Amino acid sequence: MTPDRFAALWRSLEPIGRDPGSGGYLRYSWSRSDLAAREWFVEEALDRDLEVETDGNGNLWAWWGDPEGGDAVVTGSHLDSVPHGGAYDGPLGVVSGLLAIDLLRERGHGEPRRPIAVAVFTEEEGGRFGVPCLGSRLLTGSLDPAKALRLRDRDGVTLADAMTAADVDPSRLGADPARLQRIGAFVELHVEQGRALVDLDRPVGVASAIWPHGRWRFTLTGEGNHAGTTAMADRHDPMLTFAYLVLAANKEARLADALATVGRVAARPGATNAIAAEVTAWLDARAPEQSTLDGLVAAVVQRVSERAARDGTKVSWTAESLTPVVDFDGGLRDRLAVLLGPAGSPAPVLPTGAGHDAGVLAAHVPTAMLFVRNPSGVSHAPAEWASDVDCAAGVDALTAALADLAFR
Amino acid sequence: MTPDRFAALWRSLEPIGRDPGSGGYLRYSWSRSDLAAREWFVEEALDRDLEVETDGNGNLWAWWGDPEGGDAVVTGSHLDSVPHGGAYDGPLGVVSGLLAIDLLRERGHGEPRRPIAVAVFTEEEGGRFGVPCLGSRLLTGSLDPAKALRLRDRDGVTLADAMTAADVDPSRLGADPARLQRIGAFVELHVEQGRALVDLDRPVGVASAIWPHGRWRFTLTGEGNHAGTTAMADRHDPMLTFAYLVLAANKEARLADALATVGRVAARPGATNAIAAEVTAWLDARAPEQSTLDGLVAAVVQRVSERAARDGTKVSWTAESLTPVVDFDGGLRDRLAVLLGPAGSPAPVLPTGAGHDAGVLAAHVPTAMLFVRNPSGVSHAPAEWASDVDCAAGVDALTAALADLAFR
Repeated sequence: MTPDRFAALWRSLEPIGRDPGSGGYLRYSWSRSDLAAREWFVEEALDRDLEVETDGNGNLWAWWGDPEGGDAVVTGSHLDSVPHGGAYDGPLGVVSGLLAIDLLRERGHGEPRRPIAVAVFTEEEGGRFGVPCLGSRLLTGSLDPAKALRLRDRDGVTLADAMTAADVDPSRLGADPARLQRIGAFVELHVEQGRALVDLDRPVGVASAIWPHGRWRFTLTGEGNHAGTTAMADRHDPMLTFAYLVLAANKEARLADALATVGRVAARPGATNAIAAEVTAWLDARAPEQSTLDGLVAAVVQRVSERAARDGTKVSWTAESLTPVVDFDGGLRDRLAVLLGPAGSPAPVLPTGAGHDAGVLAAHVPTAMLFVRNPSGVSHAPAEWASDVDCAAGVDALTAALADLAFR
Repeated sequence: MTPDRFAALWRSLEPIGRDPGSGGYLRYSWSRSDLAAREWFVEEALDRDLEVETDGNGNLWAWWGDPEGGDAVVTGSHLDSVPHGGAYDGPLGVVSGLLAIDLLRERGHGEPRRPIAVAVFTEEEGGRFGVPCLGSRLLTGSLDPAKALRLRDRDGVTLADAMTAADVDPSRLGADPARLQRIGAFVELHVEQGRALVDLDRPVGVASAIWPHGRWRFTLTGEGNHAGTTAMADRHDPMLTFAYLVLAANKEARLADALATVGRVAARPGATNAIAAEVTAWLDARAPEQSTLDGLVAAVVQRVSERAARDGTKVSWTAESLTPVVDFDGGLRDRLAVLLGPAGSPAPVLPTGAGHDAGVLAAHVPTAMLFVRNPSGVSHAPAEWASDVDCAAGVDALTAALADLAFR
C-alpha cells in the first residue's frame, strides 16, 4: 500500500472528535463524536459492500463473507479515546482492517475461504464509564451486564441512559457465546505504545504477551486543620504520605524493571488554606511476571505504611482491578512473526504493558496483535504518532496475515 | 456570663449549614445556609432592639446607639465557613458580640458614650469565591469591585449573580470610606486556631500580630503518556516533581520555624492509566517575619527546580496572594491585655498565622483581637471546638473590652 493511499482514508477520520485546544481526542463512547466516528465506519464499510451489524453490546461488525459461516477471521480495534488521547490508539487498527480488505480484493483472491470481519469494539479505553474493554468484556461474558448498565460517567449518566440516548437498546447487553463461537481467529493491529520498534529499527512487530497489571486505590487519612495556625509538629498531613507513596512507587518500579504510575489524585477538602483531611491516590502497576507485580505492590504498601506511622496518618488500599498475564496464541504468534519479516529475519516479538480487546478475546479465541512503530513512544496523549510510511507497512502486514489465515 | 446562657444562644445558630455527613459546615457566602445564618443574626439583633443595616458589600451591622454618631466601637466577625469547616471560626465572635451587649445592658450602664455595633462580614474564608476577607476588603477599598463581581465559584456562578439571586443589589459593591471613618475601634473575638492557650492554661488571649503569608501556585509540566507502556527511564512525570515539592516545603518550613502546606492539587488529564501531563499545586506559606517567609519560598522554588531538571519537567510559579505582616494597635493591645488578666498577670499576647477581617481593618482603624482557648487546636475542620465555660469567659472579656472603650 502506498503511504498516500493510507493517508487518504486516515485523514477522513482524523477530524472527528479532535479537541482544537489540546489537539487530543475526546471520543467517549456514545458521545456525539463517538457516534460520528461510528457513522464514518458504517459508511466506509457499506461503500465496500460489507455487511454491517451492531451487536447487543454496541460493537460494530463489517463482514466480507457469511457472518454465520463460522471459523471467521476477525480484525479491528476501537474508535474511542482516553481524555485528550492520541489519534492512532484504536483507529489505526480499524482503518488498517478496511484497507487490508481493499488490498485483498485488488489482488484478485476472490471470496475468502473463511469469512472476514472488521470489528469496532465499544469503549476499549474505559474513558467514559471507567471499565476498559467494556464491549469485549460484555461480549465474552466477563462483565455482568446488570452491573455495566449501572456504570456512571463523571456527569452521573448511566451506560443504560447513554445507549438509549444514542438509540441503541441497552436491554440486549451481555454475553454472546454464539457470536464468539463463530470467530476462528482475532488479529488486532495497534500503534506501538513505547519505543521498542524504534530501537530495533523495524516498522512492524508481533505481540508476545500482555503484562499482568492492576489498579490500586489508596486512601490516606490524616487530620484536616488550618494551614495558617497548626504547628508543623502538630500535623497529621496525608499529603506528605501521598508524596512519599508517589516517590516510593517510582523507586520500587525502577528496581523491579516494572512500571508504576500515580496519575490521579484527589485531596479533601482541597482548599489552599487547609491541611488535607484525606488524600485518595490511584496506583497503576504492571510487570512482566505476576510475582514481580505482587512484590512491587507489597513493597509500596510496606513503605507507605511505615511513612504513615511517622506522619500520624492512616493508610488503606484496595485493588480496583487485577488483570493476570495474557499470553497470545503461540502458534499464531510464531507463524505471523515469520510471515511478516523478510526471509530469515522474523518480525520482532514484543510484550506490552497495555490492555487491549485482543487480551480479552485471547481467553476464548486464538488471538494475535501486530504493532506499528511510534517514533514519539508516546501514547494516550496528542504526541502519539506513526508515519504514513509505517502505517502503510502495517496495512501490508495485516493484509498478509489475513491472506494467510482466510485464503490459504 | 454563665456557660448555660452562652450555650442557649449558641445552640440556636449551630444547626444552620451543618453537613450531617462530616459534621462540618458548608456555609458559603450567599448560599441558602448563609442566608439562613444571616436571617438568624437579623432576628437576634432586632430582638435586642438593635438597628440592622446591610451595607453595599453585603456586610451586616447591628447598632446600639447612633450609626452616624462616629467614633463607633465595632465588634463582630463572620458566619461563613470553609468547606466542612468547624462551628466556631467566625460565629463565636458574632454570638459573643450579641451576648456582650446583653451583659452591658443588664449591668445598667445605660446608653454607650460611643455607638456600639456588631458586624457580620461577608465571605471571610474565601470558601466560595476564593478571595478571603471579601467583605472587609471591599469595604476598605483594597479589592476592586469590578474584579470582585466577576469572581466565579466552582460551578461558574459569579459573585454578581449570587448576590442578585439573594436579592442583594450587586451594583453597590465597593469602597465605603464614610462608613469606615465612623469606626473608632474594632475588636474581633475569635476561637484560637492552635494550642498556645492550652499550653499556657489560660482561657482568653490577645493578638499581637498576623504573620505575613501568601499563596503560590506552581505549574509542573511534563509529558502525558501511557502508564502501561512507557518505560520508567523515558518518563517526564510531573507527579514526581509535585511529590518532591510537598516534601521539600514541609522540610523547609520545619527548618525555618515557619508553616508551609500543600492542601490542593490538580493533575491533568487525571486518569489512572495515564502519566500526568501537568500537575498544579498550591503552596500556602506563613512565617513570623517577611524575610523568613521570602527565604522559605525561595528555598522551595530552588529545590523544586533542581528536582524538575532531574525529572525532565518544567516548573513555573506565581504568587496568587501576598499579605504583609499586620501588627495590631499597640496601645489597644496592651490596654486589653492588662484589662483582661487578673491583677499583675496580663492576658497572654499571641501572634497568629491566620488572616482575619481584623487584619484588613487594622490598616484603617485601631484594631484588636481576642482569642478563646481551643482544646483540640484544630481549626477549619469539624474538630474545632471551645468549651461553653471558655466561651462564656470570652463573652466576659469582650464585655469588659467594650465597656472600657465605649462607656469610659
